[in-house]
Amino acid sequence: MTAHPFRTTLLSCVAFLAGACATATGPSSEEDIVSSEEVVVETEEMSPSRAMHERAIVMDTHLDTPANLVLPGFDIMERHDPALDYSQVDLPRMVEGGLDGGFWVIYTPQGPLATEAYEAVRDTAILRSLAIHKMVAANPDYFEIATKSTDAARIEGEGKRIVYQSIENAYPLGEDLSLLKTFYRLGVRMVGPVHFANNQFGDSATDPEGPDNDGLSALGFELVKEANRLGILLDGSHAHDLTVYDMMEASKTPIILSHSGARNVFDHPRNVDDALLLKLKETGGVIQMNALGAYLKVLQTQPAKRAAIMKLRKEMGDVDQMTEEDYQTYLETRRAIDAEFPSDMADFDDYMEHFIHVLDLIGPDHVGVGADWDGGGGVVGMQDIAAFPLITERLIDAGYAEEDIKKIWGGNVIRLLGEAEEYAASLKE
Amino acid sequence: MTAHPFRTTLLSCVAFLAGACATATGPSSEEDIVSSEEVVVETEEMSPSRAMHERAIVMDTHLDTPANLVLPGFDIMERHDPALDYSQVDLPRMVEGGLDGGFWVIYTPQGPLATEAYEAVRDTAILRSLAIHKMVAANPDYFEIATKSTDAARIEGEGKRIVYQSIENAYPLGEDLSLLKTFYRLGVRMVGPVHFANNQFGDSATDPEGPDNDGLSALGFELVKEANRLGILLDGSHAHDLTVYDMMEASKTPIILSHSGARNVFDHPRNVDDALLLKLKETGGVIQMNALGAYLKVLQTQPAKRAAIMKLRKEMGDVDQMTEEDYQTYLETRRAIDAEFPSDMADFDDYMEHFIHVLDLIGPDHVGVGADWDGGGGVVGMQDIAAFPLITERLIDAGYAEEDIKKIWGGNVIRLLGEAEEYAASLKE
Repeated sequence: MTAHPFRTTLLSCVAFLAGACATATGPSSEEDIVSSEEVVVETEEMSPSRAMHERAIVMDTHLDTPANLVLPGFDIMERHDPALDYSQVDLPRMVEGGLDGGFWVIYTPQGPLATEAYEAVRDTAILRSLAIHKMVAANPDYFEIATKSTDAARIEGEGKRIVYQSIENAYPLGEDLSLLKTFYRLGVRMVGPVHFANNQFGDSATDPEGPDNDGLSALGFELVKEANRLGILLDGSHAHDLTVYDMMEASKTPIILSHSGARNVFDHPRNVDDALLLKLKETGGVIQMNALGAYLKVLQTQPAKRAAIMKLRKEMGDVDQMTEEDYQTYLETRRAIDAEFPSDMADFDDYMEHFIHVLDLIGPDHVGVGADWDGGGGVVGMQDIAAFPLITERLIDAGYAEEDIKKIWGGNVIRLLGEAEEYAASLKE
Repeated sequence: MTAHPFRTTLLSCVAFLAGACATATGPSSEEDIVSSEEVVVETEEMSPSRAMHERAIVMDTHLDTPANLVLPGFDIMERHDPALDYSQVDLPRMVEGGLDGGFWVIYTPQGPLATEAYEAVRDTAILRSLAIHKMVAANPDYFEIATKSTDAARIEGEGKRIVYQSIENAYPLGEDLSLLKTFYRLGVRMVGPVHFANNQFGDSATDPEGPDNDGLSALGFELVKEANRLGILLDGSHAHDLTVYDMMEASKTPIILSHSGARNVFDHPRNVDDALLLKLKETGGVIQMNALGAYLKVLQTQPAKRAAIMKLRKEMGDVDQMTEEDYQTYLETRRAIDAEFPSDMADFDDYMEHFIHVLDLIGPDHVGVGADWDGGGGVVGMQDIAAFPLITERLIDAGYAEEDIKKIWGGNVIRLLGEAEEYAASLKE
C-alpha cells in the first residue's frame, strides 16, 4: 500500500462504489486524501470480489478514448456522464471501475489507397499519439506511458494508470513500413492491419466487396515481419478470417484480437468462430471480448435514426474542429435524436454469454477484455468502464480462480507483449 | 497588469535582478505570489531600460534548448548553473532575463544522404517536437505552443512563455517534402535547409568540400515553394551565400537568418557580408544576431581540449542515453577538461560590435536576436539568457528608440511570420 494520494483516494472509495463516491474523487481535492491507516480499514471493508478486482492488473486492450482527447473542452481528469456526452473513459471512472489502464488507440478512418491520402492520415495518426503523450505529460502523477511488458505491473504498483498505445488500422503507414518504427519510437506496441474495409495490407472482415487478397497482401506479410522485428503485438480484430489465419501463420509470436466476439454465439463477421478460436489457442494467442452491441446479438436497426445522425454530422462538420459551444449544441441535438429513436441494445448478459462461451472453449489463458470503449462499446448494465467490477463478479460466479481472473484482466496480454519483446530481442543477438 | 501568479512574481523580481532574485522565483512557491498592488510598486522601481525591456515582446529565434529536454534529469522549471551543466535556458532564467520565448529548435545532426538514415533522423526530429509539446503540456500555466503570428502578443500578455518551433537542418525530411506538412501540423513555423554540410536541399556555408549545387538544389527550390505554401518562415543561417541568395530570390516572402553574424566585422563563413545584408534588407528580411564566440572574433583553438572532449564522448556515448548518474559523471569530467584548458572567449563587446554594425548598415527593421543558446552561443558578460537586459541597455545607449527596440526583440520576426501566413492564405483564396 503506497502513500500516493490518488491511490489512497481510490481505495477509500471502492467500499461504497458507484456515483456518490466517484463524484467525490476529484484528484485535485485535498479533502479526499486519507491516511494510509484509513485506507487499510477501507480496503478491509471491500467486497471479496472487489478486493480481487483491485489485486489484478486490470487492462482493456481497446480504449478509443484518444479520439475524445482532441474534442473541444474534453478533460480526462474530469468525470463525464455518458448520457450527456457519450464518453465512457476518464480518470475518475477508471478509479471507480478499477481500470488500471490498457491500450489507448490511435485510430484513423480509411480513405483512398493513394499517396496523398496516406500522407494526410499519417500526420493525423502522429498527432493522435501526440495527444496521448500530452495527456500523460499534463498529469504525470496519474498516468504513465508504458512500452515494456514489465511496465504494467510497475506503473500499477505506483498507483498510476497504464498507457500503452496501439494502432487500429495500419492504413496511415501508407506503403512505407519504416513508419512502423516511427510509431514504435512514439511508444506504439500493438498494430492491427485493417479496419472496416480492405486496404493495402489485406482484407477486412466487413468490406462489402469481400476479400481482395485472400487474407494478407504481400505488403501485409511485410507488416507482420516488421512488427515481429520491432516487438509490436499484431492485432487481428477487424481482419477477415483469412487475414487472421495468415497472421497466425506468419507471425513469429502469438497474435491478439484486441476487441472481438464469438461467432458461434452470434453470427457476425466481426466475431470469430470456434475453429479460429481453437487455432488462436493452439498458437498461444488471446481474444479480448468486445462489448459492441450490434456484434453481440440481433438488434433492430433504425435507418431513420442513422439518417438523422448523418444529417447532423453533415451540417455541423467534424466534432474535433468545433468550438466548445458548437460541440455542446451538437450533443444536445444528438441527445434529442436518441430520445426520438430509442435504441435497441444488447445487455450485460449478452456480453457475458460471448465471454463465457469463449472461456469454456479455449480457457482463461487465451481470453481478456477489449470492450471498445469510446468506439461503440457498452451494453445495458455496463455503459462505461465504471461497471468493470461486474465482470470480475461474474467470473468468480462462473468458478474462475483468482489466478485465472488476473490472467484475463492483464496477465495474458502482458505475456503476449513479453513474447513479442523476446523475439525482437533474439534477432539482435 | 494581470493577476497571473507567475507574471506577478516576475515583476516583483525585476527591480533587484540577478542571482539572489532568480533563486527565489520557483514558480511553485506560494510565497512568491504578490498582490497586483505590490506589483505596481515594484514595476515603478524598475530601471527605465529594464521597464522598456519588459514592455517589449522579447524573443530569441534560435533556442537549442529542446536538445536539453531529453537529457537525464533536466527540468525546464528549475534554475541551472551554466558553470555546472552548460545549460543556458530555463524558466527561472527566462523570467530573470525577461525572455518571453522564441523559436525552440528541432535540430538533428546530419548523416549519410540515404533512405535509411533519413528515416531514422525523421523519427528523431518528430520525437524532438514531441519533447517540446510535453514540456508545454506539463507546464500549461507557464508555456504555450505558438503557431500564428498573433500568438506571441497574446501569450506574452497572459504572462506565459512563447513556444514557436523551428527546424534547423531540413535533412530529416529526406526527399519526402510531404513531411514538411507533418512538422507544420506539429507546429513548426520556421525551417532552415542545411546545417554544417551540404545536403539534399543545397549548400552549407561550412562544407569543407565547398558548394555542390551553387546554392539550392532542385529539391531545395521545392522546399522553398512548399514552405511558402504552408506559411513557414525560411531560415538562411548555416546556408552558403549562394544558397541564401537563391532563397531570397525564390521565396515569395522575406527570409530570416535565425542566428548569424557580420562578415565585415569578422570574416567567417557563418557570417554574411554587407552586400548580402543589403540584399536582405531590400527583400524585407531579418538577421538575428548570433553570440557564438568562434564566429565573433579570432579565438585560439585548442586541439588538445577538443581531443579530450571527443575522447570523453566516445567513451561515454550519447548524453541523452545516459542514466542521470552517468550524466553527472560526464559533466564532472567535462568541467575538469575546461579547468585544464581554459577557453579563449569572445565577450559582450565583441557581440555588440556585430550587432551595431548590422544595425548601422540595414536599420532596426531588419535586425533581431538569435544567440544560439544551448547550441554554442554565449560570451563573457552574457553567458546565458539571464543577461538579455544588457542588450536593451546597449541599444538605448546607441540611441535606439523604444519602438525600434520592440521591433528588434520581437516585432520583426512577428512581421515576417505574418507575411508568410498572408502569402499562404492568399493561395487558398
